[in-house]
Amino acid sequence: MPDSLRELTTQLQQFARDRDWGQFHSPKNLASALIVEAGELLEHFQWLTEDQSRKLDDTKREAVGAEMADVLLYLLQLSSALDIDLIAAAQAKIKVNARKYPVDVARGSSRKSDER
Amino acid sequence: MPDSLRELTTQLQQFARDRDWGQFHSPKNLASALIVEAGELLEHFQWLTEDQSRKLDDTKREAVGAEMADVLLYLLQLSSALDIDLIAAAQAKIKVNARKYPVDVARGSSRKSDER
Amino acid sequence: MPDSLRELTTQLQQFARDRDWGQFHSPKNLASALIVEAGELLEHFQWLTEDQSRKLDDTKREAVGAEMADVLLYLLQLSSALDIDLIAAAQAKIKVNARKYPVDVARGSSRKSDER
Amino acid sequence: MPDSLRELTTQLQQFARDRDWGQFHSPKNLASALIVEAGELLEHFQWLTEDQSRKLDDTKREAVGAEMADVLLYLLQLSSALDIDLIAAAQAKIKVNARKYPVDVARGSSRKSDER
Repeated sequence: MPDSLRELTTQLQQFARDRDWGQFHSPKNLASALIVEAGELLEHFQWLTEDQSRKLDDTKREAVGAEMADVLLYLLQLSSALDIDLIAAAQAKIKVNARKYPVDVARGSSRKSDER
Repeated sequence: MPDSLRELTTQLQQFARDRDWGQFHSPKNLASALIVEAGELLEHFQWLTEDQSRKLDDTKREAVGAEMADVLLYLLQLSSALDIDLIAAAQAKIKVNARKYPVDVARGSSRKSDER
Repeated sequence: MPDSLRELTTQLQQFARDRDWGQFHSPKNLASALIVEAGELLEHFQWLTEDQSRKLDDTKREAVGAEMADVLLYLLQLSSALDIDLIAAAQAKIKVNARKYPVDVARGSSRKSDER
Repeated sequence: MPDSLRELTTQLQQFARDRDWGQFHSPKNLASALIVEAGELLEHFQWLTEDQSRKLDDTKREAVGAEMADVLLYLLQLSSALDIDLIAAAQAKIKVNARKYPVDVARGSSRKSDER
Protein backbone atom coordinates (compact mmCIF):
# COMPACT_ATOMS: atom_id res chain seq x y z
CA MET A 1 0.00 0.00 0.00
CA PRO A 2 1.22 3.49 -0.76
CA ASP A 3 2.49 5.64 2.06
CA SER A 4 -0.47 7.97 2.34
CA LEU A 5 -2.99 5.12 2.50
CA ARG A 6 -0.83 3.39 5.07
CA GLU A 7 -0.59 6.60 7.02
CA LEU A 8 -4.35 7.08 6.94
CA THR A 9 -4.84 3.49 8.05
CA THR A 10 -2.44 3.92 10.97
CA GLN A 11 -4.23 7.10 12.03
CA LEU A 12 -7.60 5.34 11.88
CA GLN A 13 -6.32 2.41 13.93
CA GLN A 14 -5.01 4.81 16.58
CA PHE A 15 -8.24 6.80 16.50
CA ALA A 16 -10.37 3.70 17.15
CA ARG A 17 -7.97 2.37 19.77
CA ASP A 18 -8.00 5.69 21.69
CA ARG A 19 -11.79 5.51 21.83
CA ASP A 20 -12.01 1.77 22.47
CA TRP A 21 -14.14 1.42 19.35
CA GLY A 22 -12.63 -1.89 18.23
CA GLN A 23 -15.61 -3.65 19.83
CA PHE A 24 -17.97 -1.89 17.40
CA HIS A 25 -15.73 -2.24 14.37
CA SER A 26 -16.46 -5.78 13.24
CA PRO A 27 -16.17 -6.22 9.45
CA LYS A 28 -19.97 -6.64 9.37
CA ASN A 29 -20.49 -3.27 11.06
CA LEU A 30 -17.82 -1.53 8.98
CA ALA A 31 -19.47 -2.79 5.76
CA SER A 32 -22.79 -1.39 7.05
CA ALA A 33 -21.22 1.94 7.93
CA LEU A 34 -19.62 2.08 4.49
CA ILE A 35 -22.91 1.68 2.63
CA VAL A 36 -24.58 4.22 4.91
CA GLU A 37 -21.92 6.74 3.86
CA ALA A 38 -22.35 5.69 0.22
CA GLY A 39 -26.03 6.57 0.66
CA GLU A 40 -25.14 10.02 2.02
CA LEU A 41 -22.90 10.45 -1.02
CA LEU A 42 -25.63 9.45 -3.46
CA GLU A 43 -28.11 11.74 -1.69
CA HIS A 44 -26.26 14.73 -3.14
CA PHE A 45 -26.95 13.47 -6.66
CA GLN A 46 -30.38 11.87 -6.42
CA TRP A 47 -32.44 14.75 -7.84
CA LEU A 48 -29.76 16.18 -10.11
CA THR A 49 -29.64 15.47 -13.82
CA GLU A 50 -26.46 13.79 -15.02
CA ASP A 51 -25.46 17.12 -16.53
CA GLN A 52 -25.94 18.97 -13.27
CA SER A 53 -23.88 16.32 -11.52
CA ARG A 54 -20.96 17.18 -13.81
CA LYS A 55 -21.10 20.85 -12.77
CA LEU A 56 -21.24 21.03 -9.00
CA ASP A 57 -20.62 24.37 -7.36
CA ASP A 58 -17.80 24.60 -4.80
CA THR A 59 -19.98 24.16 -1.71
CA LYS A 60 -21.57 21.02 -3.07
CA ARG A 61 -18.25 19.71 -4.36
CA GLU A 62 -16.75 20.05 -0.90
CA ALA A 63 -19.72 18.32 0.73
CA VAL A 64 -19.43 15.50 -1.80
CA GLY A 65 -15.71 15.22 -1.09
CA ALA A 66 -16.41 14.85 2.63
CA GLU A 67 -18.81 11.94 1.97
CA MET A 68 -16.29 10.32 -0.35
CA ALA A 69 -13.72 10.64 2.43
CA ASP A 70 -16.09 8.81 4.79
CA VAL A 71 -16.42 5.96 2.30
CA LEU A 72 -12.64 5.74 1.94
CA LEU A 73 -12.09 5.80 5.69
CA TYR A 74 -14.44 2.86 6.25
CA LEU A 75 -12.91 1.04 3.29
CA LEU A 76 -9.47 1.42 4.85
CA GLN A 77 -10.71 0.30 8.26
CA LEU A 78 -12.35 -2.73 6.67
CA SER A 79 -9.21 -3.68 4.77
CA SER A 80 -7.21 -3.28 7.96
CA ALA A 81 -9.71 -5.43 9.93
CA LEU A 82 -9.62 -8.17 7.28
CA ASP A 83 -5.93 -7.75 6.43
CA ILE A 84 -6.74 -7.17 2.75
CA ASP A 85 -4.33 -5.28 0.48
CA LEU A 86 -6.74 -2.88 -1.16
CA ILE A 87 -4.37 -1.69 -3.88
CA ALA A 88 -3.44 -5.24 -4.89
CA ALA A 89 -7.14 -6.17 -4.96
CA ALA A 90 -7.86 -3.15 -7.15
CA GLN A 91 -5.03 -4.00 -9.55
CA ALA A 92 -6.35 -7.56 -9.81
CA LYS A 93 -9.86 -6.28 -10.46
CA ILE A 94 -8.72 -4.03 -13.30
CA LYS A 95 -7.19 -7.09 -14.97
CA VAL A 96 -10.42 -9.06 -14.56
CA ASN A 97 -12.40 -6.18 -16.05
CA ALA A 98 -10.03 -5.92 -19.02
CA ARG A 99 -10.77 -9.55 -19.89
CA LYS A 100 -14.49 -9.15 -19.23
CA TYR A 101 -14.92 -6.05 -21.37
CA PRO A 102 -12.67 -6.34 -24.43
CA VAL A 103 -12.31 -2.96 -26.13
CA ASP A 104 -13.83 -4.03 -29.45
CA VAL A 105 -16.96 -5.50 -27.86
CA ALA A 106 -17.57 -3.04 -25.04
CA ARG A 107 -16.86 0.14 -26.99
CA GLY A 108 -19.62 2.71 -26.49
CA SER A 109 -22.06 0.03 -25.54
CA SER A 110 -24.45 0.95 -22.75
CA ARG A 111 -25.84 -2.57 -22.95
CA LYS A 112 -22.41 -3.95 -22.14
CA SER A 113 -21.81 -1.47 -19.38
CA ASP A 114 -25.35 -2.04 -18.18
CA GLU A 115 -24.46 -5.65 -17.48
CA ARG A 116 -21.36 -4.89 -15.50
CA MET B 1 -2.34 11.52 -4.15
CA PRO B 2 0.12 8.69 -3.67
CA ASP B 3 1.65 7.04 -6.67
CA SER B 4 -0.36 3.84 -6.61
CA LEU B 5 -3.68 5.66 -6.35
CA ARG B 6 -2.62 7.98 -9.14
CA GLU B 7 -1.56 4.97 -11.19
CA LEU B 8 -4.90 3.24 -10.61
CA THR B 9 -6.71 6.44 -11.56
CA THR B 10 -4.73 6.77 -14.77
CA GLN B 11 -5.45 3.15 -15.67
CA LEU B 12 -9.17 3.66 -15.03
CA GLN B 13 -9.25 6.81 -17.16
CA GLN B 14 -7.56 4.93 -20.01
CA PHE B 15 -9.89 1.96 -19.55
CA ALA B 16 -13.02 4.12 -19.83
CA ARG B 17 -11.58 6.12 -22.73
CA ASP B 18 -10.75 2.96 -24.70
CA ARG B 19 -14.35 1.83 -24.33
CA ASP B 20 -15.91 5.26 -24.83
CA TRP B 21 -17.60 4.94 -21.46
CA GLY B 22 -17.16 8.60 -20.46
CA GLN B 23 -20.73 9.22 -21.63
CA PHE B 24 -22.03 6.81 -18.93
CA HIS B 25 -19.66 7.97 -16.22
CA SER B 26 -21.38 11.08 -14.93
CA PRO B 27 -20.78 11.67 -11.20
CA LYS B 28 -24.44 10.78 -10.61
CA ASN B 29 -23.99 7.39 -12.28
CA LEU B 30 -20.64 6.71 -10.61
CA ALA B 31 -22.16 7.42 -7.19
CA SER B 32 -24.95 4.94 -8.05
CA ALA B 33 -22.48 2.31 -9.22
CA LEU B 34 -20.48 2.82 -6.03
CA ILE B 35 -23.42 2.12 -3.73
CA VAL B 36 -24.43 -0.89 -5.82
CA GLU B 37 -20.95 -2.34 -5.20
CA ALA B 38 -21.21 -1.41 -1.51
CA GLY B 39 -24.39 -3.50 -1.47
CA GLU B 40 -22.58 -6.47 -3.01
CA LEU B 41 -19.94 -6.04 -0.33
CA LEU B 42 -22.49 -5.97 2.48
CA GLU B 43 -24.26 -9.01 1.01
CA HIS B 44 -21.32 -11.16 2.14
CA PHE B 45 -21.93 -10.12 5.74
CA GLN B 46 -25.70 -9.79 5.99
CA TRP B 47 -26.45 -13.19 7.61
CA LEU B 48 -23.17 -13.55 9.48
CA THR B 49 -22.79 -12.76 13.15
CA GLU B 50 -20.23 -10.07 13.94
CA ASP B 51 -17.96 -12.82 15.23
CA GLN B 52 -18.21 -14.81 12.01
CA SER B 53 -17.44 -11.63 10.07
CA ARG B 54 -14.13 -11.40 11.94
CA LYS B 55 -13.13 -14.92 10.85
CA LEU B 56 -13.71 -15.23 7.12
CA ASP B 57 -12.21 -18.19 5.32
CA ASP B 58 -9.85 -17.51 2.41
CA THR B 59 -12.45 -17.92 -0.36
CA LYS B 60 -14.82 -15.47 1.27
CA ARG B 61 -12.00 -13.09 2.14
CA GLU B 62 -10.96 -12.96 -1.50
CA ALA B 63 -14.54 -12.39 -2.66
CA VAL B 64 -14.89 -9.59 -0.13
CA GLY B 65 -11.61 -8.07 -1.33
CA ALA B 66 -12.90 -8.05 -4.91
CA GLU B 67 -16.03 -6.12 -3.87
CA MET B 68 -13.92 -3.68 -1.87
CA ALA B 69 -11.80 -3.18 -4.97
CA ASP B 70 -14.94 -2.31 -6.95
CA VAL B 71 -15.89 0.31 -4.36
CA LEU B 72 -12.39 1.80 -4.51
CA LEU B 73 -12.36 1.87 -8.31
CA TYR B 74 -15.63 3.80 -8.47
CA LEU B 75 -14.43 6.10 -5.70
CA LEU B 76 -11.30 6.89 -7.72
CA GLN B 77 -13.30 7.44 -10.90
CA LEU B 78 -15.64 9.76 -9.04
CA SER B 79 -12.78 11.76 -7.55
CA SER B 80 -11.23 12.00 -10.98
CA ALA B 81 -14.55 13.11 -12.56
CA LEU B 82 -15.04 15.79 -9.89
CA ASP B 83 -11.35 16.67 -9.54
CA ILE B 84 -11.41 15.94 -5.81
CA ASP B 85 -8.22 15.03 -3.93
CA LEU B 86 -9.44 11.98 -2.03
CA ILE B 87 -6.44 11.75 0.31
CA ALA B 88 -6.65 15.42 1.27
CA ALA B 89 -10.40 15.04 1.86
CA ALA B 90 -9.75 12.00 4.07
CA GLN B 91 -7.09 13.82 6.08
CA ALA B 92 -9.49 16.74 6.58
CA LYS B 93 -12.23 14.34 7.68
CA ILE B 94 -10.03 12.69 10.28
CA LYS B 95 -9.41 16.12 11.81
CA VAL B 96 -13.14 16.86 11.88
CA ASN B 97 -13.82 13.52 13.57
CA ALA B 98 -11.12 14.13 16.18
CA ARG B 99 -12.92 17.33 17.21
CA LYS B 100 -16.34 15.66 17.06
CA TYR B 101 -15.40 12.65 19.17
CA PRO B 102 -12.99 13.77 21.92
CA VAL B 103 -11.28 10.75 23.47
CA ASP B 104 -12.62 11.31 26.97
CA VAL B 105 -16.26 11.61 25.86
CA ALA B 106 -16.37 9.01 23.10
CA ARG B 107 -14.34 6.32 24.85
CA GLY B 108 -16.10 2.95 24.63
CA SER B 109 -19.43 4.62 24.11
CA SER B 110 -21.73 2.89 21.66
CA ARG B 111 -24.17 5.73 22.12
CA LYS B 112 -21.57 8.19 20.87
CA SER B 113 -20.53 5.98 18.01
CA ASP B 114 -24.19 5.30 17.29
CA GLU B 115 -24.64 8.96 16.54
CA ARG B 116 -21.75 9.19 14.16
CA MET C 1 -52.72 -3.08 7.73
CA PRO C 2 -54.67 -4.04 4.65
CA ASP C 3 -55.52 -7.66 4.08
CA SER C 4 -52.99 -8.40 1.36
CA LEU C 5 -50.09 -6.92 3.32
CA ARG C 6 -51.21 -8.84 6.37
CA GLU C 7 -51.47 -11.97 4.28
CA LEU C 8 -47.97 -11.47 2.86
CA THR C 9 -46.64 -10.87 6.36
CA THR C 10 -48.25 -14.06 7.66
CA GLN C 11 -46.81 -16.04 4.76
CA LEU C 12 -43.35 -14.62 5.43
CA GLN C 13 -43.56 -15.44 9.14
CA GLN C 14 -44.55 -19.02 8.29
CA PHE C 15 -41.81 -19.24 5.66
CA ALA C 16 -39.09 -18.19 8.14
CA ARG C 17 -40.52 -20.39 10.90
CA ASP C 18 -40.53 -23.46 8.64
CA ARG C 19 -36.85 -22.90 7.89
CA ASP C 20 -35.87 -21.88 11.41
CA TRP C 21 -34.58 -18.59 10.04
CA GLY C 22 -35.75 -16.46 12.97
CA GLN C 23 -32.23 -16.67 14.39
CA PHE C 24 -30.85 -14.82 11.34
CA HIS C 25 -33.70 -12.33 11.08
CA SER C 26 -32.71 -9.73 13.65
CA PRO C 27 -33.86 -6.21 12.72
CA LYS C 28 -30.19 -5.34 12.11
CA ASN C 29 -29.83 -8.16 9.58
CA LEU C 30 -33.18 -7.46 7.92
CA ALA C 31 -32.22 -3.80 7.45
CA SER C 32 -28.96 -4.99 5.85
CA ALA C 33 -30.78 -7.42 3.57
CA LEU C 34 -33.20 -4.66 2.60
CA ILE C 35 -30.47 -2.29 1.43
CA VAL C 36 -28.71 -5.11 -0.42
CA GLU C 37 -31.92 -5.65 -2.39
CA ALA C 38 -32.28 -1.89 -2.91
CA GLY C 39 -28.80 -2.05 -4.47
CA GLU C 40 -29.87 -4.83 -6.82
CA LEU C 41 -32.86 -2.68 -7.76
CA LEU C 42 -30.70 0.37 -8.46
CA GLU C 43 -28.27 -1.75 -10.48
CA HIS C 44 -30.89 -2.00 -13.23
CA PHE C 45 -30.91 1.78 -13.56
CA GLN C 46 -27.31 2.79 -12.92
CA TRP C 47 -26.18 3.20 -16.53
CA LEU C 48 -29.55 4.21 -17.99
CA THR C 49 -30.48 7.80 -18.69
CA GLU C 50 -33.54 9.04 -16.83
CA ASP C 51 -35.43 8.83 -20.12
CA GLN C 52 -34.46 5.23 -20.68
CA SER C 53 -35.53 4.43 -17.14
CA ARG C 54 -39.05 5.64 -18.02
CA LYS C 55 -39.28 3.22 -20.95
CA LEU C 56 -38.20 -0.22 -19.75
CA ASP C 57 -38.94 -3.18 -21.98
CA ASP C 58 -41.02 -6.03 -20.54
CA THR C 59 -38.10 -8.26 -19.56
CA LYS C 60 -36.40 -5.47 -17.66
CA ARG C 61 -39.68 -4.33 -16.12
CA GLU C 62 -40.29 -7.80 -14.76
CA ALA C 63 -36.75 -8.04 -13.37
CA VAL C 64 -37.18 -4.66 -11.70
CA GLY C 65 -40.52 -5.79 -10.26
CA ALA C 66 -38.84 -8.84 -8.72
CA GLU C 67 -36.24 -6.65 -6.98
CA MET C 68 -38.96 -4.31 -5.74
CA ALA C 69 -40.75 -7.36 -4.35
CA ASP C 70 -37.60 -8.32 -2.44
CA VAL C 71 -37.44 -4.85 -0.89
CA LEU C 72 -41.11 -5.05 0.12
CA LEU C 73 -40.70 -8.54 1.61
CA TYR C 74 -37.83 -7.42 3.85
CA LEU C 75 -39.73 -4.26 4.77
CA LEU C 76 -42.68 -6.38 5.88
CA GLN C 77 -40.45 -8.76 7.82
CA LEU C 78 -38.80 -5.81 9.53
CA SER C 79 -42.12 -4.24 10.46
CA SER C 80 -43.27 -7.58 11.80
CA ALA C 81 -40.03 -8.04 13.81
CA LEU C 82 -40.34 -4.56 15.30
CA ASP C 83 -44.13 -4.57 15.54
CA ILE C 84 -44.39 -1.40 13.49
CA ASP C 85 -47.57 -0.56 11.55
CA LEU C 86 -46.10 0.33 8.18
CA ILE C 87 -49.24 1.86 6.71
CA ALA C 88 -49.80 4.08 9.75
CA ALA C 89 -46.14 5.15 9.63
CA ALA C 90 -46.51 5.98 5.92
CA GLN C 91 -49.67 8.00 6.52
CA ALA C 92 -47.90 9.92 9.28
CA LYS C 93 -44.92 10.57 7.00
CA ILE C 94 -47.09 11.97 4.23
CA LYS C 95 -48.50 14.48 6.73
CA VAL C 96 -44.99 15.46 7.83
CA ASN C 97 -43.94 15.93 4.20
CA ALA C 98 -46.99 18.08 3.47
CA ARG C 99 -45.93 20.49 6.21
CA LYS C 100 -42.28 20.36 5.15
CA TYR C 101 -42.92 21.06 1.47
CA PRO C 102 -45.79 23.53 1.18
CA VAL C 103 -47.13 23.59 -2.38
CA ASP C 104 -46.35 27.25 -3.04
CA VAL C 105 -42.73 26.98 -1.92
CA ALA C 106 -41.82 23.54 -3.24
CA ARG C 107 -43.53 23.83 -6.62
CA GLY C 108 -41.20 22.78 -9.42
CA SER C 109 -38.17 23.45 -7.29
CA SER C 110 -35.32 21.02 -7.71
CA ARG C 111 -33.50 22.86 -4.96
CA LYS C 112 -36.31 22.14 -2.56
CA SER C 113 -36.58 18.55 -3.65
CA ASP C 114 -32.83 18.31 -3.59
CA GLU C 115 -32.91 18.99 0.11
CA ARG C 116 -35.50 16.37 0.91
CA MET D 1 -53.46 -3.73 -4.69
CA PRO D 2 -55.20 -3.42 -1.36
CA ASP D 3 -57.15 -0.28 -0.62
CA SER D 4 -54.68 1.33 1.77
CA LEU D 5 -51.73 0.90 -0.60
CA ARG D 6 -53.83 2.25 -3.44
CA GLU D 7 -54.88 5.15 -1.25
CA LEU D 8 -51.27 5.92 -0.32
CA THR D 9 -50.28 5.72 -3.99
CA THR D 10 -53.05 8.14 -4.99
CA GLN D 11 -52.00 10.56 -2.25
CA LEU D 12 -48.37 10.39 -3.42
CA GLN D 13 -49.35 11.00 -7.03
CA GLN D 14 -51.37 14.03 -5.99
CA PHE D 15 -48.55 15.25 -3.74
CA ALA D 16 -46.00 15.12 -6.58
CA ARG D 17 -48.44 16.65 -9.09
CA ASP D 18 -49.22 19.58 -6.78
CA ARG D 19 -45.50 20.32 -6.52
CA ASP D 20 -44.71 19.62 -10.17
CA TRP D 21 -42.18 17.01 -9.06
CA GLY D 22 -42.94 14.52 -11.86
CA GLN D 23 -39.92 15.90 -13.72
CA PHE D 24 -37.61 14.72 -10.91
CA HIS D 25 -39.37 11.41 -10.33
CA SER D 26 -37.90 9.24 -13.08
CA PRO D 27 -37.65 5.56 -12.08
CA LYS D 28 -33.86 6.02 -11.99
CA ASN D 29 -34.14 8.84 -9.47
CA LEU D 30 -36.80 7.08 -7.40
CA ALA D 31 -34.61 3.98 -7.14
CA SER D 32 -31.76 6.24 -5.95
CA ALA D 33 -33.98 7.97 -3.40
CA LEU D 34 -35.17 4.56 -2.17
CA ILE D 35 -31.66 3.30 -1.44
CA VAL D 36 -30.73 6.59 0.23
CA GLU D 37 -33.65 6.05 2.62
CA ALA D 38 -32.62 2.41 3.08
CA GLY D 39 -29.24 3.77 4.18
CA GLU D 40 -30.87 6.10 6.72
CA LEU D 41 -32.78 3.07 8.00
CA LEU D 42 -29.63 0.95 8.32
CA GLU D 43 -27.83 3.82 10.06
CA HIS D 44 -29.99 3.23 13.14
CA PHE D 45 -28.68 -0.32 13.38
CA GLN D 46 -25.06 -0.07 12.24
CA TRP D 47 -23.40 0.02 15.65
CA LEU D 48 -25.99 -2.03 17.53
CA THR D 49 -25.55 -5.72 18.25
CA GLU D 50 -28.23 -7.97 16.79
CA ASP D 51 -29.63 -8.35 20.30
CA GLN D 52 -29.86 -4.61 20.82
CA SER D 53 -31.60 -4.31 17.47
CA ARG D 54 -34.35 -6.61 18.77
CA LYS D 55 -34.99 -4.35 21.78
CA LEU D 56 -35.32 -0.78 20.52
CA ASP D 57 -36.72 1.79 22.89
CA ASP D 58 -39.82 3.71 21.80
CA THR D 59 -37.99 6.78 20.51
CA LYS D 60 -35.71 4.72 18.33
CA ARG D 61 -38.58 2.47 17.21
CA GLU D 62 -40.50 5.51 16.03
CA ALA D 63 -37.49 6.91 14.19
CA VAL D 64 -36.96 3.54 12.52
CA GLY D 65 -40.65 3.43 11.54
CA ALA D 66 -40.33 6.85 9.88
CA GLU D 67 -37.38 5.62 7.76
CA MET D 68 -39.30 2.48 6.83
CA ALA D 69 -42.19 4.68 5.77
CA ASP D 70 -39.84 6.62 3.48
CA VAL D 71 -38.71 3.38 1.85
CA LEU D 72 -42.33 2.30 1.33
CA LEU D 73 -43.33 5.67 -0.11
CA TYR D 74 -40.56 5.55 -2.74
CA LEU D 75 -41.38 1.92 -3.47
CA LEU D 76 -45.00 2.88 -4.14
CA GLN D 77 -44.00 5.82 -6.29
CA LEU D 78 -41.68 3.58 -8.28
CA SER D 79 -44.36 0.95 -8.81
CA SER D 80 -46.75 3.66 -9.89
CA ALA D 81 -44.16 5.16 -12.31
CA LEU D 82 -43.46 1.73 -13.83
CA ASP D 83 -47.04 0.46 -13.56
CA ILE D 84 -45.91 -2.57 -11.56
CA ASP D 85 -48.32 -4.41 -9.25
CA LEU D 86 -46.20 -4.65 -6.12
CA ILE D 87 -48.41 -7.14 -4.28
CA ALA D 88 -48.57 -9.48 -7.28
CA ALA D 89 -44.78 -9.23 -7.66
CA ALA D 90 -44.35 -10.05 -3.95
CA GLN D 91 -46.69 -13.05 -4.18
CA ALA D 92 -44.74 -14.31 -7.20
CA LYS D 93 -41.45 -13.83 -5.35
CA ILE D 94 -42.63 -15.84 -2.35
CA LYS D 95 -43.40 -18.75 -4.71
CA VAL D 96 -39.94 -18.48 -6.29
CA ASN D 97 -38.32 -18.48 -2.83
CA ALA D 98 -40.33 -21.54 -1.75
CA ARG D 99 -38.88 -23.50 -4.68
CA LYS D 100 -35.39 -22.08 -4.11
CA TYR D 101 -35.25 -22.87 -0.39
CA PRO D 102 -37.04 -26.18 0.22
CA VAL D 103 -37.79 -26.61 3.92
CA ASP D 104 -35.72 -29.77 4.39
CA VAL D 105 -32.59 -28.30 2.79
CA ALA D 106 -32.76 -24.72 4.06
CA ARG D 107 -33.80 -25.51 7.65
CA GLY D 108 -31.60 -23.65 10.12
CA SER D 109 -28.85 -23.27 7.58
CA SER D 110 -27.00 -20.00 7.66
CA ARG D 111 -25.04 -21.16 4.65
CA LYS D 112 -28.22 -21.50 2.66
CA SER D 113 -29.56 -18.20 3.86
CA ASP D 114 -26.16 -16.68 3.30
CA GLU D 115 -26.50 -17.47 -0.38
CA ARG D 116 -29.89 -15.90 -0.77
